[in-house]
Amino acid sequence: VHRSVAIAKNCESRANQLRALLFSPELAFLMEAHNGLTARVVSDEGFQGIWASGLSMSAALGVRDRNEASWTQVLDVLDFMVDASSVPILVDGDTGHGDFNNVRRFVRKLCQRGVAGVCIEDKQFPKTNSFLSEYQPLVSVEEFCGKIRAAQDTKLDDDFCVVARVEALISGLGMGEAIKRACAYHAAGADAILIHSKKSTAAEIFEFMRLWEGRCPVVIVPTKYASTPASAFRQAGVSTVIWANHNLRASLAAVRATTRRVRDEQSVAGLDESIATLDEVFSTVGMAEIEEAERRYLPQH
Amino acid sequence: VHRSVAIAKNCESRANQLRALLFSPELAFLMEAHNGLTARVVSDEGFQGIWASGLSMSAALGVRDRNEASWTQVLDVLDFMVDASSVPILVDGDTGHGDFNNVRRFVRKLCQRGVAGVCIEDKQFPKTNSFLSEYQPLVSVEEFCGKIRAAQDTKLDDDFCVVARVEALISGLGMGEAIKRACAYHAAGADAILIHSKKSTAAEIFEFMRLWEGRCPVVIVPTKYASTPASAFRQAGVSTVIWANHNLRASLAAVRATTRRVRDEQSVAGLDESIATLDEVFSTVGMAEIEEAERRYLPQH
Amino acid sequence: VHRSVAIAKNCESRANQLRALLFSPELAFLMEAHNGLTARVVSDEGFQGIWASGLSMSAALGVRDRNEASWTQVLDVLDFMVDASSVPILVDGDTGHGDFNNVRRFVRKLCQRGVAGVCIEDKQFPKTNSFLSEYQPLVSVEEFCGKIRAAQDTKLDDDFCVVARVEALISGLGMGEAIKRACAYHAAGADAILIHSKKSTAAEIFEFMRLWEGRCPVVIVPTKYASTPASAFRQAGVSTVIWANHNLRASLAAVRATTRRVRDEQSVAGLDESIATLDEVFSTVGMAEIEEAERRYLPQH
Amino acid sequence: VHRSVAIAKNCESRANQLRALLFSPELAFLMEAHNGLTARVVSDEGFQGIWASGLSMSAALGVRDRNEASWTQVLDVLDFMVDASSVPILVDGDTGHGDFNNVRRFVRKLCQRGVAGVCIEDKQFPKTNSFLSEYQPLVSVEEFCGKIRAAQDTKLDDDFCVVARVEALISGLGMGEAIKRACAYHAAGADAILIHSKKSTAAEIFEFMRLWEGRCPVVIVPTKYASTPASAFRQAGVSTVIWANHNLRASLAAVRATTRRVRDEQSVAGLDESIATLDEVFSTVGMAEIEEAERRYLPQH
Repeated sequence: VHRSVAIAKNCESRANQLRALLFSPELAFLMEAHNGLTARVVSDEGFQGIWASGLSMSAALGVRDRNEASWTQVLDVLDFMVDASSVPILVDGDTGHGDFNNVRRFVRKLCQRGVAGVCIEDKQFPKTNSFLSEYQPLVSVEEFCGKIRAAQDTKLDDDFCVVARVEALISGLGMGEAIKRACAYHAAGADAILIHSKKSTAAEIFEFMRLWEGRCPVVIVPTKYASTPASAFRQAGVSTVIWANHNLRASLAAVRATTRRVRDEQSVAGLDESIATLDEVFSTVGMAEIEEAERRYLPQH
Repeated sequence: VHRSVAIAKNCESRANQLRALLFSPELAFLMEAHNGLTARVVSDEGFQGIWASGLSMSAALGVRDRNEASWTQVLDVLDFMVDASSVPILVDGDTGHGDFNNVRRFVRKLCQRGVAGVCIEDKQFPKTNSFLSEYQPLVSVEEFCGKIRAAQDTKLDDDFCVVARVEALISGLGMGEAIKRACAYHAAGADAILIHSKKSTAAEIFEFMRLWEGRCPVVIVPTKYASTPASAFRQAGVSTVIWANHNLRASLAAVRATTRRVRDEQSVAGLDESIATLDEVFSTVGMAEIEEAERRYLPQH
Repeated sequence: VHRSVAIAKNCESRANQLRALLFSPELAFLMEAHNGLTARVVSDEGFQGIWASGLSMSAALGVRDRNEASWTQVLDVLDFMVDASSVPILVDGDTGHGDFNNVRRFVRKLCQRGVAGVCIEDKQFPKTNSFLSEYQPLVSVEEFCGKIRAAQDTKLDDDFCVVARVEALISGLGMGEAIKRACAYHAAGADAILIHSKKSTAAEIFEFMRLWEGRCPVVIVPTKYASTPASAFRQAGVSTVIWANHNLRASLAAVRATTRRVRDEQSVAGLDESIATLDEVFSTVGMAEIEEAERRYLPQH
Repeated sequence: VHRSVAIAKNCESRANQLRALLFSPELAFLMEAHNGLTARVVSDEGFQGIWASGLSMSAALGVRDRNEASWTQVLDVLDFMVDASSVPILVDGDTGHGDFNNVRRFVRKLCQRGVAGVCIEDKQFPKTNSFLSEYQPLVSVEEFCGKIRAAQDTKLDDDFCVVARVEALISGLGMGEAIKRACAYHAAGADAILIHSKKSTAAEIFEFMRLWEGRCPVVIVPTKYASTPASAFRQAGVSTVIWANHNLRASLAAVRATTRRVRDEQSVAGLDESIATLDEVFSTVGMAEIEEAERRYLPQH
């Protein structure tokens, strides 16, 4: 078997796997990652896929979730994440970084980099985080459908997934608008709908599920309504749950606590219980392979 | 007062501050950071300076500490770190990414990006992490002194610091070679010497300090000999202690534990105690400023 | 004299020089460049400043003048241009790459990279080239003034110049709208006004100059009305003329002719008259300095 | 037919096409390009392939052919070149940017970006241009063979080509060493040998061809011995001729002449004969497609 064929298969397979997750009757889970290291961990620990969160990637870079990082800076992060992992990555594409043409460039590059799918949302560029500020204007249905069609026409791999994120509930436009938009986006070619809510219960989500009637897979982000158990989402027919920013938040808490403790104690001696060993760092990034490769490729003395 | 002057002063001040730390009789501490977010935390929590660790930056990117990230990819990380922090950053420059001319380009860009100093080491490019493999050949004293002089001649700010890292103890060449090299590097213009050791006690470090006789500031990295208290370093006349990789290790441990727990529980509901809130994420990256800026710069309805 | 001061002065000086050009009673000329090499040539050949054209930079990259290159990709081009030249660079900032906040990030990075000034225009993001398509909607005066104020509040060097480009004539909104907008932009803090026209004569420009009455410096781009002599612009009180895209066009013509000829002749033997020698290439990029530096920094055998 | 299959085929086809060129009995020609625009021109004008010259790419960036641009900066240039063209690109990989492991990373990224092949040379990192300085030390045969094997083991597409450049003649080590190295590199897996010469006649090349006896395809770079006709190379059994830097040199000459003329004449009015029209610029980068796409994807009024 030619390697090129194997590769083609392999390139397909991540997008393929994401598509399978979305369309499977099983409830699937995507875990947030925001750089190569966290993508490796999520992949190694057995998650079926990775959510490359816009909030998390920008926060890790030290900037705000408001398109402060350029779309090519996001791409650079994703390049490391794809290399470090072996499961499909669905990237939070915000608004697509401009109009339909920016969406086309972004999707083309995502496919070349091996990202499995993109989620774009119907807010205006530059975007604002959905949990901030009350009223955030949406783009017209017609304009957003143009972006979905542009993404689908541009993708380099039939299995690459385009998920349309409906912000109508977040923007206070009501369930009717949410369903109307979801239907339009689905008709325009979206593979799945991400319905976003910032309510503290999942009632809104369940109502959407009832009205949606399984037209296409539905993805949810239980950040604010985290107390609802997975079984309830399963029963409601949700396709995929995204745990959207918890690795970033775990990392921030750990770094702050560690920094404070080392500052106060002027010592790292007491940290051993709470931090990974150097060997764990080396094994996570694959140092062992280098030693083997040096034996294979370097002149031996 | 012209802002340009203020800026010039400000640009100076981080390199200035690093220089002051190095030459002060007080024992100073630099805490590792590896991206914009961790640089912000270290800066906010009151550390005097940041160690931009090569091991940590590469591990965060998901690659190995073997010059797998290009020097401009490192620069991109540093750009975010400078923007996110307000204390001086000393960057782990590995071997300088090639010969004297690569050192010149790297130093020039570091100065433009606002980094306060660089530490270069006398190993060969591409470098290997000092805690891996037994024998690592060093470059000649003459070649390394050329790099130090090139760095000093190139820097755009007189206060920018060039720290020469001596790997002789790590490479098993003995104390005589370490002192000989440190003297040569100091004579070539190094502002400070970083003496590296992988022994589990600080005996080697203390011997170096006795023989060194305060020719210039000495920087140490107590990773393997972490149980030695700071007071002992203070007494020995050490200038600066680097806590070299503990935020990365704290982050890795937290992310792995969080990922495993969410995978097993199919829920994030129980995480609240162990992760930062979304509000902490927003405040760490400065979201509040955006709201104020929107009032100032956006049309008001 | 401390080098840091010299540098600070030098950093000031490019923005300073651009400011001096704009406010001088002499007619000044900026010549287009689109990469490091062309910036070096324009600088070496004695032009007072460089116009980093959006059209030219994107065309050189092989993409369209429609924000297909991200703003950080533009920044990467500018980084090389600043390093390769010693005269001030005014960059074509298009619409500022988003809203006021994107303008702030762009301006901050431009200042750090040593660019002397930015020109932003009152069209919508993503922009379209002004010579294409008839109707191009402008943003509101209020929104654009917010961008100008954001740029001025953000700049790291008091001398950094913010030029406001008025597209009212291009968009067919008439002279009244052009003057109204120019006045508002000037009041919002623009250092100079770029009045753009795609008429084949300069009549429109001269009318603007009469009505403008020297409120602040005016910059023009005689691409379509190239037959008007410089003396006429001088007499009309224009501050600065931009030759906007001619090096890119010269380069494209030369490359196409060379490629065709080599294809047809299957030989490069006849090209000598029409191409630079290798020595000219080496001297343009400063190869001689390397030999001298090798003697200074490399071990001598 | 699935697009993913078509894409896989298409991805294969550029490397495939390069492989076919190298192994075909016909003499093939690669023309130098150094950015997206020139890659487009070379592709549009009917050349079978593109030589992404290290000298030209670095000169266009304004830096020296001495690994001043990082390997990821080169990658960024190549990304634009692949997008802008439709013929195979063979990239000048210099020494591979470090040791075998840097070669592996570079090759992996080249395959992901759609580059068809890489040429690596047996000099030391950082490299110096072959036409400069007399004595340039080579790496050992064993070390270089390790790089070739590493490249072949890493490539993601079986058709991706690894060309080994022999610098023995350039370094004055004689024909025996050149043949010895070529044989070793071929045995290590090189798909083709690039034999480089800086003599003003092709005698050395022809002697190499006689001694080589067609073990594998031979690539040459007739820059110094440009007066030799293609027919002579054909007769000698050369596989592929690279016109290595002539578009960069054409561009430099044109830009310098244009800049001088505009400076002297304070006008662009007389340039029309010697520069491309704006319409040619727009059509070269594909502006027409945008208008069509806007009709398809933007809301119509």
